[in-house]
Amino acid sequence: MKYVDMNSAQLQAEYSEVSKCFAEEKQKGLKLDMSRGKPGKEQLDIVSDILTVLSKPEDCVADGLDVRNYGELTGLPCAKKYFAEILGCKPEECFIGGNASLTLMYDTIAKAYTHGLLHSEKPWSKLDTVKFLCPSPGYDRHFNISRSFGMELITITMTENGPDMDAVEEAVKDPAVKGIWCVPKYSNPDGIIYSSEIISRIAHLKPVAPDFVVMWDNAYCIHEFEGDYVPFPDILSICQDAGNPDMVFEYASTSKVTFPGAGISVMAASVDNIKYMAGLITYQSISYDKVNQLRHVRYLKDKTHTLDLMKKHAAILRPKFHTVLDALEHEIAPLGIASWKRPTGGYFVSVDTMDGLAKRTLALCREAGVVMTSAGATFPYGADPRDRNIRIAPSLPPVAELEEAIHVFCVCLRLAALEKLLGRQ
Amino acid sequence: MKYVDMNSAQLQAEYSEVSKCFAEEKQKGLKLDMSRGKPGKEQLDIVSDILTVLSKPEDCVADGLDVRNYGELTGLPCAKKYFAEILGCKPEECFIGGNASLTLMYDTIAKAYTHGLLHSEKPWSKLDTVKFLCPSPGYDRHFNISRSFGMELITITMTENGPDMDAVEEAVKDPAVKGIWCVPKYSNPDGIIYSSEIISRIAHLKPVAPDFVVMWDNAYCIHEFEGDYVPFPDILSICQDAGNPDMVFEYASTSKVTFPGAGISVMAASVDNIKYMAGLITYQSISYDKVNQLRHVRYLKDKTHTLDLMKKHAAILRPKFHTVLDALEHEIAPLGIASWKRPTGGYFVSVDTMDGLAKRTLALCREAGVVMTSAGATFPYGADPRDRNIRIAPSLPPVAELEEAIHVFCVCLRLAALEKLLGRQ
Repeated sequence: MKYVDMNSAQLQAEYSEVSKCFAEEKQKGLKLDMSRGKPGKEQLDIVSDILTVLSKPEDCVADGLDVRNYGELTGLPCAKKYFAEILGCKPEECFIGGNASLTLMYDTIAKAYTHGLLHSEKPWSKLDTVKFLCPSPGYDRHFNISRSFGMELITITMTENGPDMDAVEEAVKDPAVKGIWCVPKYSNPDGIIYSSEIISRIAHLKPVAPDFVVMWDNAYCIHEFEGDYVPFPDILSICQDAGNPDMVFEYASTSKVTFPGAGISVMAASVDNIKYMAGLITYQSISYDKVNQLRHVRYLKDKTHTLDLMKKHAAILRPKFHTVLDALEHEIAPLGIASWKRPTGGYFVSVDTMDGLAKRTLALCREAGVVMTSAGATFPYGADPRDRNIRIAPSLPPVAELEEAIHVFCVCLRLAALEKLLGRQ
Repeated sequence: MKYVDMNSAQLQAEYSEVSKCFAEEKQKGLKLDMSRGKPGKEQLDIVSDILTVLSKPEDCVADGLDVRNYGELTGLPCAKKYFAEILGCKPEECFIGGNASLTLMYDTIAKAYTHGLLHSEKPWSKLDTVKFLCPSPGYDRHFNISRSFGMELITITMTENGPDMDAVEEAVKDPAVKGIWCVPKYSNPDGIIYSSEIISRIAHLKPVAPDFVVMWDNAYCIHEFEGDYVPFPDILSICQDAGNPDMVFEYASTSKVTFPGAGISVMAASVDNIKYMAGLITYQSISYDKVNQLRHVRYLKDKTHTLDLMKKHAAILRPKFHTVLDALEHEIAPLGIASWKRPTGGYFVSVDTMDGLAKRTLALCREAGVVMTSAGATFPYGADPRDRNIRIAPSLPPVAELEEAIHVFCVCLRLAALEKLLGRQ
């Protein structure tokens, strides 16, 4: 029975029972973490062979280069070829970075701020106001990069097919609007795949700012955990065909393919953009870690081989997502107090509670020893206007722990809903 | 006989002979590189065991952490301990970075520009003028970082014991002067070790700018190629004792210990500075490559073990430096057309020609197929006021090639001097 359909006595009875459950969970002294999209140990273990794929000096030669020495700022040719195949773009459009695509994204924005982008009239630091579009719910680290540079964050509603493009098209009429954050495949946290129509409208944007930038974080480009690999179009050529060749920077990494934080990353953009950015990055770096670039190329080989590996990751992740989704289905769905999607890739389950329950639910979880991403984190300034979105990251804990953690979450959500309905909070 | 003591006929005869030598060298179609401080292949080969020091999942646990996963932005505790021992500072004063200390230096300046340093009144991007002190000859990549941010570069003369401190003390009375670049041990390119007195005067500076920063690039902290390790004082505690605890950032890396461009780096500074910088870097990175951090700590172990390894590097580098120094001694010294120091560590031999010969000498070298660091590179704006400093990097070529290359250099230098003395250029 839905909570909203219960009368006061029924709610009261339910509240007593759920309170008892909560007290029981609290007593267990749990310490469970569903806060971040960290792969679990089992996922790390299946890629251990990468550690020894380069073991002798003669293994360290590729493309005629000794990868152990300085040089090749934009990355090893074989690494460019690898990522170009994954993303569907050209090798010369790829700049291979260090262990984190986040750093490449930050650097792009930082360069815009200190030097300007290719088509900037001046560095953004010289402007009074810089605004950035933030489809929400979205990825807190994206929003925080913009925020750390003092930009004004504009919330754009996420639809089932991607950002609300009417709002985006309206917003880019403002010359202070300089860009948009996108996670186009298995969006963080909703797991939405942008539709072809949305992608086309993004590529055809006519922003007033000549240096408007689409920050295309293709973090989950090959990260299906349910079903087969879903092909996804190359944003670079779509933007090029739309007459906006320099408007987009795409990012990806192997963080959730091999080791998080010890993988390699890529920034893909028009050849002119890459040339411009490399010209700025040359002051900052002689070259990124090419030993690790080669280690990855030798280990991952190509797209087909990598997709085979992703199937192994999927086999580990799938039961974890099912654990979360089954618990929500079983414990929450009948009560009508929250909704969620059933993603088939990515690293998150995004739950929308009844308005005004997210903070309280997560405070209760914390009390019971279950850490989750902070409420509001998926919105600009960490402020969810309806206080309802909760991002669940099921990847790290083993299934047994996850069962416990998601049960605690469901109890806390129920308790928060009952408190609200009974006017107790 | 010194060229300046030769009469016109003698100079003319010498010119004919040297011209012939030059033509002979040119005909050989050489392709030799003494441009950059790159370790040679033999040096890379002796550290090959680092490739497999982590080979199984259970090897990847340190300090209670699975280093393969995200986290620990400021670095692995064991890596902090390692660098603290090398530098003589405290582990909590160490921030462990990625594959390049240059990137950490750039990031420090970039953060000063975008956000300000700990004691900045405002970000440097908001200031009309920022000036930076550049002891010269110095490292072009340092100067270019400052230059890339539009700073005004102030040349400070290098003495035999370090920067001319009278000039530095005078310069820091200008509130626009925000910092100084230093390579305190085996300075690039002179190979000078800063004296205790100079170091003390640096630490006791009373700059008008509250956010004046000493960029202490201790790149060659354990890089003796001649004789035993030379202990060097910890700049952090000296600055602290001088009442300037937050004035200095020190940098070092394993680029010339293990693999250049695939090593690990450190930024050492006061605990307050590290905390402040980590607070800014948290937007840019979740964590650096901790697998590589652990790989290095397991392989290098500690200072004693690392110094043993540096002896092996020294044994490879020593004959290369001797080749260069012996050739200069034999072919150039008697002619009185250049002077140089005999460094005992670092990666360079710095030659000062008679005024006005550097560019011409290097143009001739290029003609004969020998690539060297561009003339002027060791001065701000790439402009050597006396056109005389040439940086020789003997580390990359095998000894046989180096013998050829340095001979070509000597021939070109002689030819340039003769052209000058005969009024032919």
